[in-house]
Amino acid sequence: MNLRLIGKTLGTAWIFEALAMALSAGVSLIYREPSGVYFLYVIALLLALGIPLFLLKVEKKGFYAKDGFAAVAFVWITMSVFGALPFFLSGELPAFDDALFESISGFTTTGASLLTNVEGMPRGLLFWRAFSHWIGGMGILVLALALLPSFGARSVHLMQAELPGPQPGKLVPKISQSARILYFIYMSLTLLQIILLLIAGMPLFDALIHAFGTAGTAGFSSKALSVAAYNSVWIEIIITVFMALFGVNFTVYFFILRRKFDLAIKNNSELWFYLGLIALSIIAIVPGVMPLYNGSAGAALRYTSFHVSSIITTTCYTTTDFFHWPLYCRIILMMLMICGACAGSTSGGLKCVRLLLLFKAFKRELRRILHPRASSHIILDGVIVKDEVMGGVTTFFFTYVMIILGATLLVSFDGYDLLTTFSSVIATLGNIGPSAGLIGPVEDYALFSPFAKGVLSVCMLAGRLEIFPLLVLCIPTYWRRGNQ
Amino acid sequence: MNLRLIGKTLGTAWIFEALAMALSAGVSLIYREPSGVYFLYVIALLLALGIPLFLLKVEKKGFYAKDGFAAVAFVWITMSVFGALPFFLSGELPAFDDALFESISGFTTTGASLLTNVEGMPRGLLFWRAFSHWIGGMGILVLALALLPSFGARSVHLMQAELPGPQPGKLVPKISQSARILYFIYMSLTLLQIILLLIAGMPLFDALIHAFGTAGTAGFSSKALSVAAYNSVWIEIIITVFMALFGVNFTVYFFILRRKFDLAIKNNSELWFYLGLIALSIIAIVPGVMPLYNGSAGAALRYTSFHVSSIITTTCYTTTDFFHWPLYCRIILMMLMICGACAGSTSGGLKCVRLLLLFKAFKRELRRILHPRASSHIILDGVIVKDEVMGGVTTFFFTYVMIILGATLLVSFDGYDLLTTFSSVIATLGNIGPSAGLIGPVEDYALFSPFAKGVLSVCMLAGRLEIFPLLVLCIPTYWRRGNQ
Repeated sequence: MNLRLIGKTLGTAWIFEALAMALSAGVSLIYREPSGVYFLYVIALLLALGIPLFLLKVEKKGFYAKDGFAAVAFVWITMSVFGALPFFLSGELPAFDDALFESISGFTTTGASLLTNVEGMPRGLLFWRAFSHWIGGMGILVLALALLPSFGARSVHLMQAELPGPQPGKLVPKISQSARILYFIYMSLTLLQIILLLIAGMPLFDALIHAFGTAGTAGFSSKALSVAAYNSVWIEIIITVFMALFGVNFTVYFFILRRKFDLAIKNNSELWFYLGLIALSIIAIVPGVMPLYNGSAGAALRYTSFHVSSIITTTCYTTTDFFHWPLYCRIILMMLMICGACAGSTSGGLKCVRLLLLFKAFKRELRRILHPRASSHIILDGVIVKDEVMGGVTTFFFTYVMIILGATLLVSFDGYDLLTTFSSVIATLGNIGPSAGLIGPVEDYALFSPFAKGVLSVCMLAGRLEIFPLLVLCIPTYWRRGNQ
Repeated sequence: MNLRLIGKTLGTAWIFEALAMALSAGVSLIYREPSGVYFLYVIALLLALGIPLFLLKVEKKGFYAKDGFAAVAFVWITMSVFGALPFFLSGELPAFDDALFESISGFTTTGASLLTNVEGMPRGLLFWRAFSHWIGGMGILVLALALLPSFGARSVHLMQAELPGPQPGKLVPKISQSARILYFIYMSLTLLQIILLLIAGMPLFDALIHAFGTAGTAGFSSKALSVAAYNSVWIEIIITVFMALFGVNFTVYFFILRRKFDLAIKNNSELWFYLGLIALSIIAIVPGVMPLYNGSAGAALRYTSFHVSSIITTTCYTTTDFFHWPLYCRIILMMLMICGACAGSTSGGLKCVRLLLLFKAFKRELRRILHPRASSHIILDGVIVKDEVMGGVTTFFFTYVMIILGATLLVSFDGYDLLTTFSSVIATLGNIGPSAGLIGPVEDYALFSPFAKGVLSVCMLAGRLEIFPLLVLCIPTYWRRGNQ
């Protein structure tokens, strides 16, 4: 355990969090909200704790995988605790565990909320909540790696732990440059969406909130009715398209920028799998929901494409109450929810590439029965997938299912019905959020006991960090002295 | 595709089915039931079709894996069709698809029933229904292998496809002898249970029915109330113990007979995993259900141990209405249901050894993060597990989950609520049967449409044959001529 290096990483992350919070304080100032002062307290605290740690001298600069994983887990836990303070201090969520739930829900891009009166909230806090989505989407350490080249030396494990997917790719040999490219793409897309939303007539503040929520594929809105509040086809189309875009692996945009269209699109099975899922789901759902919209194919297409895009990317903005859609439509949405969008995007869930690899493993099994002596390699986009990667993917799938079952058991002590319990776990572990209503009738996380909220908070973190970084902290041998 | 060999296998299986049906005809004769005549028709049909196929000359005697798998799938499908005829011809289930559902439910040891008036049924049919459990439990081809040594030469793939588990073990080098040992153990245990049930005061006919249902870990009863009808502590204890015993891998008994206690018990992780699950579940559930039985720990223990044993082995005899147990208790039972008992037993579900191996793969993943250069082998009971076996296990798990999701989608077109739909799929795929009431309120499979019943029938077969034999039939290349 490289304590100094982990300490320095924490300090760096806290300083970045302070900077992010400064933006929110600025918003409070613009709207002259007294609650903005709490941001200043927390910023002071973050800097007071972060700067000394940041200035630590570190001899051994390289990260072992385990230290990288642990550092990321520490960063996300502490970042969520500090991020909860503005909600708590301002009294908007007077119980600290509720504030923490909201903060974790923000950073993990889940979007599950305990706030009941969104429209009455101070704008600074609404901004902070949405901005935490944006930071959490791509990751605060990736941001740090992007902006501090010296920090980035040999920290591939940090990026590996914070970016979703089984094989988080370095785009270019230098980590810090890869991180910078990722954030450049992320920022450009977000900016483009803000501009388009403004053109479509959304007020600036709302456009910021919804662009952050879309970019993080997260789901916090500034309206209680979510995107339905605007009732504008153009706004819905923009958000539909951008949700889908933020669900794409960012390496695709990188290769497009480099004009390597073969790598970006043609030979990109995951992209086709993802687009195919979206298309098939829309085709399957539209006929089922048409009767609900007076037989209008246009309306059905509008609502279906919005929700398919919203659910597969685990954003979960809503424009209609899909709890009344036919059961088979909701099951398709539930399957998309578990699947999630592409690795290397900001979405939650299992990620398309993992499912693709699992389907390939399934085909290999059939091949083995038919042709016992045939090669047993799994090939993705022309490259043989290493056994360790396959092992990681299959184990991830198993662990994911086990966590669903285990967390369902723990939350069941609250005594709600099975569907409510089960759906709350799926929705938090997949970083989906408000759409618990899809499978159960309860959308209101405030009903749960503090224990259950704690379990669901852990699920959100486990989902965002893809389980293993958090698990490293739970292994006793990791904490033993001298275990380097 | 070795058509002659597959044909000969089918013929053999049909002749054995005719013999099994002859026993049921005998029961009809004893009780002087006119419906017994339909057994004679079907026996005549089975022999007329089976004997010519059995007499086929086969040049190439060895089975390829794919032909073994396909043969087993054909045998089980046709056996179910013939097995349905007595229900259909006698008019007890006047729709053929219902009769087929009942027959598949019998052979696959599921125990889901469409019959509403069990106690009014002719005894010959009740016997046939229960006896199909007994045959299906260990497998009709394993029986054929046991009794026809010449048939058994080089047919390891038949046994592999019909016996559950990732590595179905040959006990001794000769297949036919392994099969004989398995059936000897199976028969002895069944006989012992019949004797004990008689001593406990159960009538002979009922003792036979319930011993068959227990041996196949299946669940058809001769009483509408299942085992609750007897309200006898001793009968419940006997059935509790025997359900648990039939959930043990039969190699354990083989090694015990050979006095190899190390192999049988000490170094048998799966056995300990299975017993540990039973013990832990009982400990966890008893406090939760005590209030329902006037605070009596004795009564709670009695009902809990019966149902834990009944559910983990996927038998699903019942002695009390556990749908009213606290949610967390039902979730534990649901997890046991998905888990199932040991490989090489007659139970359904995923099987303990697969879960054990998946947990080991999970631990390997953590080890890789902590010690990247450590060995990545998975060791079970002192033996390194081959990569192919691990690949098979992880793929099986993935396929199992996908089938659950896919079948839930298909059954959802019936328009029942999600829980009913979901639970019917879990209960049929896991060969569990009547306990759909555990997760959903509907226990009555008669409510479903013919399409949904068809899907659930396929689930039962897929669960009993562990998916892949059925899938081989769905691959177009398997059917191509000259594909040997």
